[in-house]
Amino acid sequence: MSSIERPSGRQPQDLRPVRITRNFTCHAEGSVLVEFGNTKVICTASVADGVPRFMRGEGRGWVTAEYGMLPRSTGDRMNREAARGKQGGRTVEIQRLIGRSLRAAIDLEALGENTITIDCDVIQADGGTRTASITGACVALADAINWMKANDKLKDDVEPLARMIASVSVGIYQGEPVLDLDYPEDSNAETDMNIVMASDGGIIEIQGTAEGEPFTEAEFMSMLGLAKSGIKELLGLQQEALANS
Amino acid sequence: MSSIERPSGRQPQDLRPVRITRNFTCHAEGSVLVEFGNTKVICTASVADGVPRFMRGEGRGWVTAEYGMLPRSTGDRMNREAARGKQGGRTVEIQRLIGRSLRAAIDLEALGENTITIDCDVIQADGGTRTASITGACVALADAINWMKANDKLKDDVEPLARMIASVSVGIYQGEPVLDLDYPEDSNAETDMNIVMASDGGIIEIQGTAEGEPFTEAEFMSMLGLAKSGIKELLGLQQEALANS
Amino acid sequence: MSSIERPSGRQPQDLRPVRITRNFTCHAEGSVLVEFGNTKVICTASVADGVPRFMRGEGRGWVTAEYGMLPRSTGDRMNREAARGKQGGRTVEIQRLIGRSLRAAIDLEALGENTITIDCDVIQADGGTRTASITGACVALADAINWMKANDKLKDDVEPLARMIASVSVGIYQGEPVLDLDYPEDSNAETDMNIVMASDGGIIEIQGTAEGEPFTEAEFMSMLGLAKSGIKELLGLQQEALANS
Amino acid sequence: MSSIERPSGRQPQDLRPVRITRNFTCHAEGSVLVEFGNTKVICTASVADGVPRFMRGEGRGWVTAEYGMLPRSTGDRMNREAARGKQGGRTVEIQRLIGRSLRAAIDLEALGENTITIDCDVIQADGGTRTASITGACVALADAINWMKANDKLKDDVEPLARMIASVSVGIYQGEPVLDLDYPEDSNAETDMNIVMASDGGIIEIQGTAEGEPFTEAEFMSMLGLAKSGIKELLGLQQEALANS
Amino acid sequence: MSSIERPSGRQPQDLRPVRITRNFTCHAEGSVLVEFGNTKVICTASVADGVPRFMRGEGRGWVTAEYGMLPRSTGDRMNREAARGKQGGRTVEIQRLIGRSLRAAIDLEALGENTITIDCDVIQADGGTRTASITGACVALADAINWMKANDKLKDDVEPLARMIASVSVGIYQGEPVLDLDYPEDSNAETDMNIVMASDGGIIEIQGTAEGEPFTEAEFMSMLGLAKSGIKELLGLQQEALANS
Amino acid sequence: MSSIERPSGRQPQDLRPVRITRNFTCHAEGSVLVEFGNTKVICTASVADGVPRFMRGEGRGWVTAEYGMLPRSTGDRMNREAARGKQGGRTVEIQRLIGRSLRAAIDLEALGENTITIDCDVIQADGGTRTASITGACVALADAINWMKANDKLKDDVEPLARMIASVSVGIYQGEPVLDLDYPEDSNAETDMNIVMASDGGIIEIQGTAEGEPFTEAEFMSMLGLAKSGIKELLGLQQEALANS
Repeated sequence: MSSIERPSGRQPQDLRPVRITRNFTCHAEGSVLVEFGNTKVICTASVADGVPRFMRGEGRGWVTAEYGMLPRSTGDRMNREAARGKQGGRTVEIQRLIGRSLRAAIDLEALGENTITIDCDVIQADGGTRTASITGACVALADAINWMKANDKLKDDVEPLARMIASVSVGIYQGEPVLDLDYPEDSNAETDMNIVMASDGGIIEIQGTAEGEPFTEAEFMSMLGLAKSGIKELLGLQQEALANS
Repeated sequence: MSSIERPSGRQPQDLRPVRITRNFTCHAEGSVLVEFGNTKVICTASVADGVPRFMRGEGRGWVTAEYGMLPRSTGDRMNREAARGKQGGRTVEIQRLIGRSLRAAIDLEALGENTITIDCDVIQADGGTRTASITGACVALADAINWMKANDKLKDDVEPLARMIASVSVGIYQGEPVLDLDYPEDSNAETDMNIVMASDGGIIEIQGTAEGEPFTEAEFMSMLGLAKSGIKELLGLQQEALANS
Repeated sequence: MSSIERPSGRQPQDLRPVRITRNFTCHAEGSVLVEFGNTKVICTASVADGVPRFMRGEGRGWVTAEYGMLPRSTGDRMNREAARGKQGGRTVEIQRLIGRSLRAAIDLEALGENTITIDCDVIQADGGTRTASITGACVALADAINWMKANDKLKDDVEPLARMIASVSVGIYQGEPVLDLDYPEDSNAETDMNIVMASDGGIIEIQGTAEGEPFTEAEFMSMLGLAKSGIKELLGLQQEALANS
Repeated sequence: MSSIERPSGRQPQDLRPVRITRNFTCHAEGSVLVEFGNTKVICTASVADGVPRFMRGEGRGWVTAEYGMLPRSTGDRMNREAARGKQGGRTVEIQRLIGRSLRAAIDLEALGENTITIDCDVIQADGGTRTASITGACVALADAINWMKANDKLKDDVEPLARMIASVSVGIYQGEPVLDLDYPEDSNAETDMNIVMASDGGIIEIQGTAEGEPFTEAEFMSMLGLAKSGIKELLGLQQEALANS
Repeated sequence: MSSIERPSGRQPQDLRPVRITRNFTCHAEGSVLVEFGNTKVICTASVADGVPRFMRGEGRGWVTAEYGMLPRSTGDRMNREAARGKQGGRTVEIQRLIGRSLRAAIDLEALGENTITIDCDVIQADGGTRTASITGACVALADAINWMKANDKLKDDVEPLARMIASVSVGIYQGEPVLDLDYPEDSNAETDMNIVMASDGGIIEIQGTAEGEPFTEAEFMSMLGLAKSGIKELLGLQQEALANS
Repeated sequence: MSSIERPSGRQPQDLRPVRITRNFTCHAEGSVLVEFGNTKVICTASVADGVPRFMRGEGRGWVTAEYGMLPRSTGDRMNREAARGKQGGRTVEIQRLIGRSLRAAIDLEALGENTITIDCDVIQADGGTRTASITGACVALADAINWMKANDKLKDDVEPLARMIASVSVGIYQGEPVLDLDYPEDSNAETDMNIVMASDGGIIEIQGTAEGEPFTEAEFMSMLGLAKSGIKELLGLQQEALANS
């Protein structure tokens, strides 16, 4: 039993309740509403013929991502990035992470010269929007690949979906490692780490940041342990969601 | 009975099924999901102390609006305006219409030096996003005013909500006036008109546009008639939604 | 006789003195200085080969419009939009209205794959700049079509100019409908409406806005009546201008 | 007599016909239409209380300038800078020259903490737009100073207008120095020089550029001589214009 | 001995030759040229009174960072970000990392309400520009703190420099972990990791990315080991540089 | 002997110590560090196949330039133009001058359809950054032409380098003409002039500006005399630098 009290009453190793709703909107080839507790993100995957100019003629596909937050997804209203005329640094950093992570799920050769654009739009934020985005977007991506198969957009006998990936945050809160931080924890954590892992056990991305004091290697290892078990659980929930049609 | 066949099978004077879900997200003072058939818009109303610089010290409040579409709310993915670095002309035109319309619902004197910002974000589009936005946003606005009362943000004995407003589109489709056009109708209509009216029967805004041939005064009058009955129905649905707590 | 006193001493149904000067500048295919009283706008129509990318190969032409105000066309100097790095919402809204309206004057099939760009630049403003712009621009457009005919830019026996169009504002000022509002009236009007009509009597665009209180259907009808007679007069003045060579 | 034939038939030392029309528009404190042949520029001078933040409290005034061209002031339509979202390099360079030059006409101490903004908007271009702008703007500036005196905006017994300034272009065309180049000359000149001089004979600005081959000191001296006599003539025309009320 | 051949002939655990030149330019409070082999970065630290608006009155200081590359610091010329009108996503991501890392070196309370801005400008790039930037910038930061002490900008008896930090990259190249990747290695690495550590042994930031295949925990641990020894070496070189005056 | 005391102790006709270091960075086809006293600029020349769209197919080449200052190249830190999202007016004006000047050094026909982009980045500023940039960039340009010859990028028997050019500033400081102003002089000069001349004695560009009072023709002539001797010296230093390999 843990010696700390998490604001949500969870144990250190507990995820928030996670829900993955497929076909949330009707136009996209893959459309998922993902909920990590009160964090809610609409993830769509859009398939288009062709690839960006710099990749043309090489026979490989491309996966890219964009991220946004509705202005009032947060406690205080944020300025709308479209109205300000530019995306903020945090937005750019997150959408680059989402794109990199999801490219690791895909065999770009098998995808052929097609582009899949992931859009993750946060409609309600309570910490962990980037990890929820990656976890939900991978389900939307799987649906988009299924759509491509059903609509003869792929060569025979190729499987672009190389592996499923999922992501979770871990951190040091009140001196103890905890899994899947919500906003009250995140804004008080000493260390914050986002990890992306694959269904075959490999690591895709580790981003750990000391918010105040540096962290030790031992702390790092216990956060990594929590993350591994959390991601395993998330990968199971993705499979359940994909099993339902 | 009508001589034309609407793609949805509706009669000319029929609205699509309309749903108004309050408290759709948890942070905003007013938060509504409005659905006109397959058109779905999240409308939030955010209350902030103070008014823009040019209005300070006059004792009056302000209501403004912003509008956006998720990139894959449409059949083909649109570019994200935040990434392009500017809002398109259509977006600007629509958010100005929403802001003007909702200011007509409010007694700005009674509001005091507070600003309410309306955000209308389309998560799924099938025609009529601006009329759904106005209709849903007015419910969010009413909730925000209620929040202000409950939180002592207003002077005693004032009522900033002067009237409810609602909006619907009408058009000439295959030569006949029809109410509440969906996308297949909208993209083939000869004339397209958006009307905003108030619960006390007055007209707030009329915007009618000949897409191809000019329209006649007689056509205009029959569109206006359809709009009046449609808006009456919408005002009733708003009341029902607000009656439920 | 009217019960109100208009600032200019006009009767409710009176236009301001209107002047249309063709060939105002020397480079454009059509160039008109239009004056509605103290409102003065330079309207040019520029012909170019080809159409925007999304229309290529369909054999149809395009008409588009841009609008601007010189910084000191107004009582207080406005910021220059080119220096601010973006066009304001009002500018975008007006230039979209001008473009839509003038496209209704043209048979785009008959125009062939050519683009006509309308520029309306206000050099002195006193209310009604958008209606003066549309009225003057249609004369510039007619001159540009004439230039195309004279320079063999059109197929034989086609007539791209389907109809002339003109525009005027009407409003409720001190409780009474009046035609062609100048700035002192416009800034105090309860309702403001801009109407675009065609030489064949059809309506192209109606945009009516309650600035404060909603307006009634009866008020709307009497404004529409004033507008119809004002536009008829303007269409006559356009013909006179075009008759002079 | 000259050995070359100028496209306009002028002698090398001839200005084009110059016209200076004061009070061209009604809102600005100074408003001038200046014409150098077919080059026509509206120059306004706008007076505002106060100075930019970096100058506050020093008791000195400020003069600044902006420059623009209507899109169809030229033979081919140029893109509108407000629509492109930025001013081009040529525009920036010209408006900095105009501002610097006109500041030399003013005693900024005597002006007090007031700002005069010069706007030069080219409505028709045929070479020499920057020199016409400077020459016309100085008359608008004089009118603005007169307006300030008449409206008690200045301390007693100060004279902010230290001197009149005027500007002209000179160049080497077909091997020979010529004054006041029009567009056909300008686009074929080997060297192009713009000179700004003051009514007391001093030089404010010299900008000479070899377009192809470098020029010699002797060529420079003969261009300078032409410029001096041209500017003297322009200063006389300014006086004539200011003498008429 | 290693089984792989690094392009530079280095052993897997070898840093490139590192040089740290203090007082490289004369205006900044701290100015360092840092060289990791052929990667050369100018790092300056600029001290200014006050903090950003959102932090005022809390008595704490701020450290922020900006990053840029000269257009021809790379093999092919890159577009200049100032000319393109925006910073790219990679730039934004890197400058946020630099800022976060250097804030971990500073006790913001002890800094008082002062801001230190770090500028890292790459004049020649050969891989590892962000790790060289952090390592060099920390020396510039130490010099800026020294300047503040010498110029009485700090309260008595406070020490804002809480610890020195340094950074290095590690990666999997041809299947083997290697330290401090140069460009030929970086562009072919399977995994790329940047680590920031402190002089007291703590970890500030870990960013590991699988470029192709996911990496294992074992690979991660051996990369971490290499990084720890490399950073120890870099911290020593910083001390040497700071010891020389 | 001069009657004034220059801050640096130089005689009126003295240049600051000038150093030209070739091959300063390793990637560019030409790369020079130029130092005029404490002013230090990195000048690179980058060769690329092809020319801008508007010049294609004419068989001629193009030379263009960009200019920037590192944020802390100056006494107070300037905002980074890339972060502000636009280049300032001074930057635009200077890079246009550099580009124009260097095009005068090149026979564009002989260059063929190739583009050379000059980048001048100021790493330390003490007045005269534009003249140092031009002088250093011409050496980088000569190296780039040599690289083209060595790499068979040019037709046989052509010489694109038509002449060397150099630039220096002159001004009236404390009533006396002085050569090569440093920042303390520049910020107090009554008149500031930048001159670009060619190795064959011709003048490429003269830009003289009265900062306060107008200057006389006699002052102009004595400044021109100083500039000619200064540029002759600079042309000699360029030759020396190019003679060393």
